[in-house]
Amino acid sequence: MVRIVEVGPRDGLQNEPTAVPTAEKAAFVQRLLESGLKEIEATSFVSPKWVPQLGDAAELWPLLPKGGLYSALVPNERGLDRALETGVQRIALFTAASDAFTQKNINMTVAESLDVFSAVMERFRSERPEGWVRGYVSTAFECPYAGKVDPSATADVARRLLEMGADEVSLGDTIGVAVPREVRALERALGLPKEKVAWHFHDTRGTAVANIAEALSLGYTVFDSSAGGLGGCPYAPGAGGNLATEDLLYFLDRSGVPTGVDHRLVAEASLPILSLLGRSPSSKAQLALLSRP
Amino acid sequence: MVRIVEVGPRDGLQNEPTAVPTAEKAAFVQRLLESGLKEIEATSFVSPKWVPQLGDAAELWPLLPKGGLYSALVPNERGLDRALETGVQRIALFTAASDAFTQKNINMTVAESLDVFSAVMERFRSERPEGWVRGYVSTAFECPYAGKVDPSATADVARRLLEMGADEVSLGDTIGVAVPREVRALERALGLPKEKVAWHFHDTRGTAVANIAEALSLGYTVFDSSAGGLGGCPYAPGAGGNLATEDLLYFLDRSGVPTGVDHRLVAEASLPILSLLGRSPSSKAQLALLSRP
Repeated sequence: MVRIVEVGPRDGLQNEPTAVPTAEKAAFVQRLLESGLKEIEATSFVSPKWVPQLGDAAELWPLLPKGGLYSALVPNERGLDRALETGVQRIALFTAASDAFTQKNINMTVAESLDVFSAVMERFRSERPEGWVRGYVSTAFECPYAGKVDPSATADVARRLLEMGADEVSLGDTIGVAVPREVRALERALGLPKEKVAWHFHDTRGTAVANIAEALSLGYTVFDSSAGGLGGCPYAPGAGGNLATEDLLYFLDRSGVPTGVDHRLVAEASLPILSLLGRSPSSKAQLALLSRP
Repeated sequence: MVRIVEVGPRDGLQNEPTAVPTAEKAAFVQRLLESGLKEIEATSFVSPKWVPQLGDAAELWPLLPKGGLYSALVPNERGLDRALETGVQRIALFTAASDAFTQKNINMTVAESLDVFSAVMERFRSERPEGWVRGYVSTAFECPYAGKVDPSATADVARRLLEMGADEVSLGDTIGVAVPREVRALERALGLPKEKVAWHFHDTRGTAVANIAEALSLGYTVFDSSAGGLGGCPYAPGAGGNLATEDLLYFLDRSGVPTGVDHRLVAEASLPILSLLGRSPSSKAQLALLSRP
């Protein structure tokens, strides 16, 4: 059985230029939950100054429907304060395998970010003994500023995150460049328990499903995706950013891997949000499914 | 070294609702050739009554620039007459692995189509001893009317085509449903020389590159694709039909497989055509590439 971590409400909406009203976000999560998706990254407690699209995290949280396993991104101690006040039980921390990337995005080196996370994680653990922590390793294959990333660099950061107590790491192909042989190369360098490693592919150049197929064939079972490919407009309408949950589901289902998720309900879940954002669906499987009666 | 068979001018334009002027088609082929693509399926000698978009085959042919290996689809003896008069040296024949599909599309059973092709091929061989023949096996995985196709049925038709003298068969996932495990299953059933088998994937549900990766890993080296994903609107703008040549090239290049093709020139080649058709680019790799300066 695979696990799908739906990141549309957080990673998706964070990368869309238009902010979505809080009630619409809650309704989006409700639809995702009804489709059978359980693990949903719902928002981020990053400063509203930096990510205004998710500035309503504290307002959204109490509106989330019962029954889901919701996580929230927490960038630092202040974000953790807000998350704890809000009642968050599952947090995600965000670093990368490239100093150039973390410097640009969170104004720290990778090592500095791990120090911050270590403190954040310790406090979270003491206040939420039953809590759950995910660590993102962005630019797992290539950095937009520093070029290709050595698999051992990504593996080191992932291992550090698990050593300091993360329940899971998610390896992100942030700029959507990887191909299956790079997945194989990174996997060889990892040496980590497979069930603790999630793969977070972006479909910017059409290779995400191929990478999922490779990771699946290597024995990995945790995959991130974003309903409707939300967050997928780094370049132009129709271009892919996040791997669409619909494309992932189609691939898994047709490959004989059960997900327990209703494809049509997922395909419909993002439609009101896409409409608000003025976008048409960009997931190929979503379009194919919705065109059938 | 892989071979890419560019099918945009034929399979692409045949499936676009708007007809493109002949001079524009010739210029399109010119740009494709300049990008480094050599094998280009340029048109079809099917009746203009059925495919008006390609009704100018005889007019287009003499306008094709020197230096390419151009093929044309030939549906029957009458089409062959026209192709021979026009000076065509490479023909493609089109059948399928499903009777329901050929009945609907060419009004023959698969067996009847093979009889027709046998006669066509014999005459072509006698008039063009140096000629080249490709046989398409459509619905190689699934038929829109009869459902899933048994790999042995596809393998039988492919074998028959090679036995009657085709230089190559192209196995088509016509409705874009296949996933890598189906590619493996079909390959196990084939038992044919790998260099004589081309794979023709449609990206309708985002799985085409994953299927290419699988076929490549199984030792196959001939792949069909369509510049700009032309022909890719079976459902809605942005939905994929033919695998885009840009997506194929990106995958191959990043996988360390040389193609000798200039990605940017390919990405630009379809732009005037897309503009004529009133479409924006739908290939993810194309969009990603064109967004960079």
